[in-house]
Amino acid sequence: MQQVQRVNEAREPDALMIGVDVGGTKIAAGIVDTNGQVEGRIQIPTDTSDVEHTLQSIACAIRSTLEAAGTPLARVKAVGLGIPGMVDPEQGVCLLSVNLGWQNVAVQRWLEQELGVPCAIDNDVSAATLGESIYGAGKGLQNMVYLSLGTGVAARAIIDGWLYRGAHGMAGEIGHLVVMPDGPVCRCGARGCLEALAAGPALALAAQNAIAEGKATQLQTYQRQHEIIRSEHIFAAASANDALSLQILREAGEHIAYGIYLLVMTFDPQLVVIGGGLAIEQSPLLIAIQARIAHLLGQSPVGRAMLSTEAIQVTNMQRDAAIVGAAALVAQDKRKKQGACAYEQYRTINYFYPRWL
Amino acid sequence: MQQVQRVNEAREPDALMIGVDVGGTKIAAGIVDTNGQVEGRIQIPTDTSDVEHTLQSIACAIRSTLEAAGTPLARVKAVGLGIPGMVDPEQGVCLLSVNLGWQNVAVQRWLEQELGVPCAIDNDVSAATLGESIYGAGKGLQNMVYLSLGTGVAARAIIDGWLYRGAHGMAGEIGHLVVMPDGPVCRCGARGCLEALAAGPALALAAQNAIAEGKATQLQTYQRQHEIIRSEHIFAAASANDALSLQILREAGEHIAYGIYLLVMTFDPQLVVIGGGLAIEQSPLLIAIQARIAHLLGQSPVGRAMLSTEAIQVTNMQRDAAIVGAAALVAQDKRKKQGACAYEQYRTINYFYPRWL
Repeated sequence: MQQVQRVNEAREPDALMIGVDVGGTKIAAGIVDTNGQVEGRIQIPTDTSDVEHTLQSIACAIRSTLEAAGTPLARVKAVGLGIPGMVDPEQGVCLLSVNLGWQNVAVQRWLEQELGVPCAIDNDVSAATLGESIYGAGKGLQNMVYLSLGTGVAARAIIDGWLYRGAHGMAGEIGHLVVMPDGPVCRCGARGCLEALAAGPALALAAQNAIAEGKATQLQTYQRQHEIIRSEHIFAAASANDALSLQILREAGEHIAYGIYLLVMTFDPQLVVIGGGLAIEQSPLLIAIQARIAHLLGQSPVGRAMLSTEAIQVTNMQRDAAIVGAAALVAQDKRKKQGACAYEQYRTINYFYPRWL
Repeated sequence: MQQVQRVNEAREPDALMIGVDVGGTKIAAGIVDTNGQVEGRIQIPTDTSDVEHTLQSIACAIRSTLEAAGTPLARVKAVGLGIPGMVDPEQGVCLLSVNLGWQNVAVQRWLEQELGVPCAIDNDVSAATLGESIYGAGKGLQNMVYLSLGTGVAARAIIDGWLYRGAHGMAGEIGHLVVMPDGPVCRCGARGCLEALAAGPALALAAQNAIAEGKATQLQTYQRQHEIIRSEHIFAAASANDALSLQILREAGEHIAYGIYLLVMTFDPQLVVIGGGLAIEQSPLLIAIQARIAHLLGQSPVGRAMLSTEAIQVTNMQRDAAIVGAAALVAQDKRKKQGACAYEQYRTINYFYPRWL
């Protein structure tokens, strides 16, 4: 695989950024140095009662991570946010976030006024993709796809060393690709989206429906204990060989594998990294994904020429990917605006944080 | 839509390039100036009897176009070739071309020795995509997808102003995406590839099979006259309301529409341009494609946010797209190697031909 070369140039070793992964239920934050090391990781609940409260939650997360790391705000050069939804990074506006209940919220302006530090925002999967490409499995690769499996299903691509956003910031948004026109209704309103078949809530819904139909399963125990079934219960029951749970994960894995196959045939990446809450190595879901991809590639000589099964990996960064990627957003955007060169050594983004800040 | 800005800088008005579109049966060539104007268009048959003869056909096409335009070779700054198959543009080697019967042919070296002029090669659809993005419907757009419908089905993308090749030069190679696992066998060996369902030869085969099954159709007349049925016969019969021909084109259009939908959900382009021999405006195939896309977008709010039906256009460049795009290959590659900046005005490739040659 082609590696991006680095130049030997002095850096500012003490430049710090804050990365924030804003979720619908929890906000995670951390202080990130130029080597991608995270200090003062914190996680707080998201107050989604109204826009102002949610923004205050984010500011609170930032102050908490500074406190946890014992770092003064004055040392922080930039703050980056990954937000679950459609984001206009140039205007710093979140156009729409179903999970946060946001529409046209000028996050960047609010936060810069609150903190007095340059801020940048982008979609949360975009941030995680950038994190994987700078510090994770995709380090130094020109072309990479990151697929997030969690409450939603979405992918983003690194193309020729840059995060690729597309015309509407939605390149790789395969969660709302309709793969089963008569499938279950998705929260987007369509039927049979990949997300409605394979995201965490879809797994839980499939389990609840099966129980309602009277299928015998260990999940009934979880349902009695917790009232609702969550995806982690399905993973736990599957580990104990519960037939229904295994079937749910296998079917979801087959849909996800098809999504990966599409991403490979379109983006032709060097590597696909799978992250998010459902990306659990050795789990029946991952095994089903791998088996199905092997099957799809087995059918297709062109697919085999484009992808080996080793080119599909599970992240080893977990939630840090979004934190360090969010922290890198300001630097990437500044570099782009200043016309950084896309085809040589200046591409390794982390190296040039201090230079562009 | 965002437009790439241009700078006002002097150009060399008389720099000429030759672009060659190498097909399995015909080679088309032309002399291209810095405005993308094509002179001395010629078309000769491809001699595929062996590698040496095919290369000589290409050289012959180049000499014929010079003769047709009354231009001496000395005025030509570069020659670019679009080749149907897998190409390594950096090494100038055609790795595999089923249509030409080539495997690991060092085309660039051979041609540079033969002509004494800098040459560049790439996949033919890549060349056409570049042509559309420099001089065609995609002019000035940052993100565009070009879909070629002809003997094969393949797409390529312009991403942030550059032709995107992917890790194996196959990004957008959706012709071999399996969309119907139990479908007809493709020439790649897989079953149910998009190309096996919707490319020209697939339409002809579907017609022949239907006739063999005894279906009444006007195509029988064509079969008697020409022994074989070609895709143009199906278009002609469909214009005369032949039910079988209309059905074949409608079904192919539905498969192609799904391919376009996938390209949109992954690449999030500003524009999709459809080209190639089957891209005939107002034809039943195009009408079927448009109707199916409208249906797919009707199902999906996210799809509608990403694509309007106006963002799908048929080329008005026809075969010139591949000729002018091939002519632009040397310039694009030189600019990339020299680290041209990807995020500002220097991106409009045609403008800088002379600068980089």
